[in-house]
Amino acid sequence: MSEAFSSEVFLAYSTYSTIVLLKMLLMGPLTGYFRLTRKVFANPEDARAHGGKDEETSKKFLRIDPDVERVRRCHQNDLENIVPFVGIGLLYALSGPDLSTAVMHFRIFAASRIFHSIAYLVPLPQPSRGLSWMVGLGVTFSMAYRVLKAGVHL
Amino acid sequence: MSEAFSSEVFLAYSTYSTIVLLKMLLMGPLTGYFRLTRKVFANPEDARAHGGKDEETSKKFLRIDPDVERVRRCHQNDLENIVPFVGIGLLYALSGPDLSTAVMHFRIFAASRIFHSIAYLVPLPQPSRGLSWMVGLGVTFSMAYRVLKAGVHL
Amino acid sequence: MSEAFSSEVFLAYSTYSTIVLLKMLLMGPLTGYFRLTRKVFANPEDARAHGGKDEETSKKFLRIDPDVERVRRCHQNDLENIVPFVGIGLLYALSGPDLSTAVMHFRIFAASRIFHSIAYLVPLPQPSRGLSWMVGLGVTFSMAYRVLKAGVHL
Repeated sequence: MSEAFSSEVFLAYSTYSTIVLLKMLLMGPLTGYFRLTRKVFANPEDARAHGGKDEETSKKFLRIDPDVERVRRCHQNDLENIVPFVGIGLLYALSGPDLSTAVMHFRIFAASRIFHSIAYLVPLPQPSRGLSWMVGLGVTFSMAYRVLKAGVHL
Repeated sequence: MSEAFSSEVFLAYSTYSTIVLLKMLLMGPLTGYFRLTRKVFANPEDARAHGGKDEETSKKFLRIDPDVERVRRCHQNDLENIVPFVGIGLLYALSGPDLSTAVMHFRIFAASRIFHSIAYLVPLPQPSRGLSWMVGLGVTFSMAYRVLKAGVHL
Repeated sequence: MSEAFSSEVFLAYSTYSTIVLLKMLLMGPLTGYFRLTRKVFANPEDARAHGGKDEETSKKFLRIDPDVERVRRCHQNDLENIVPFVGIGLLYALSGPDLSTAVMHFRIFAASRIFHSIAYLVPLPQPSRGLSWMVGLGVTFSMAYRVLKAGVHL
């Protein structure tokens, strides 16, 4: 096994990064599930494959559905927030933080993003979703601050 | 040269990650090509720059085109799937997998994503695109499983 | 502190990656600012939270606004270009480039993306935005070329 994995901080980064990336990836099949069960497609070839051979019916399935759009917005928010966490988190894990501080950052981020998805998809009344988004953002900013404090080369 | 590049598994990760990221990047110029040749723009300043000085004509170019939207959906699907591959793949490459197993993962992923883009842009009838998407997803899940099996710190 | 941070090239990568990822992250709060000040929401629960208890008013706020869409397109362009830079840039930093060449790549990329956002949001007349996008793309292609030249395992 590689040296990287012998560091506890890196192992924690690896664990939480994988968890949040898997959570993000699952939004894809979830979109697919809503598209298939509600017969809501973006591509004519998808509508044809799932709407029978009737041309009229298949055209009707090329539509926009509020629930599908909601899952897509949730997925997009993951892309906008989880991807920077994974990038900045790697640098943070390599910058030599305290294990307990690092694990606290990762835990709070993962919890905030899982709660964010629940708040988006249920949906829970605001400001629950807004706050969970801000908590995740705060964790990433805190890690970025630590990375830049550990060393800068401009 | 760095130590990382002296590991064959890391070299394979580096090669395939670069290939799929370049493939994803090329969707940008492809969108631009369709926008310019079909005169389909999202911003008034773009329509003005490519539609002459006539205000009427330039406004007509602010429109939605099915082919441009198709390229954009293909690009979005790349973001949703290739980015997690690059993140989880890095951890996988560092987790000490067999070289042959790792290379097989990377090859199948790259092939599935290149085929996915072809299936999206031609377009090929379903389920060709859906299956290639699932194969790519399966590879990333398999790597994530290996990463978590190699070590977890919660 | 980790060994990775003892390399000047890696330190430069860390600095510029963090800068461009923070720049990308800031598009989120900017979108939120426009949504809140202009009362333009994508979710009914957001409109309710910020539009008072009146059902009629809250429904009116579920709309599309050209300025919000502009910020979102700018954010999307960042995702499409900054994320590949972070991925390919990591491999590039580990491939053993000259420090001065590497720093030049990172500086040009960061400058081009900051200028791109300004050109998008002001907005500046074309081709200012288009050129800054191409410069950023060129830097990433140049790094990818160096990564593949440093070693390939297919």
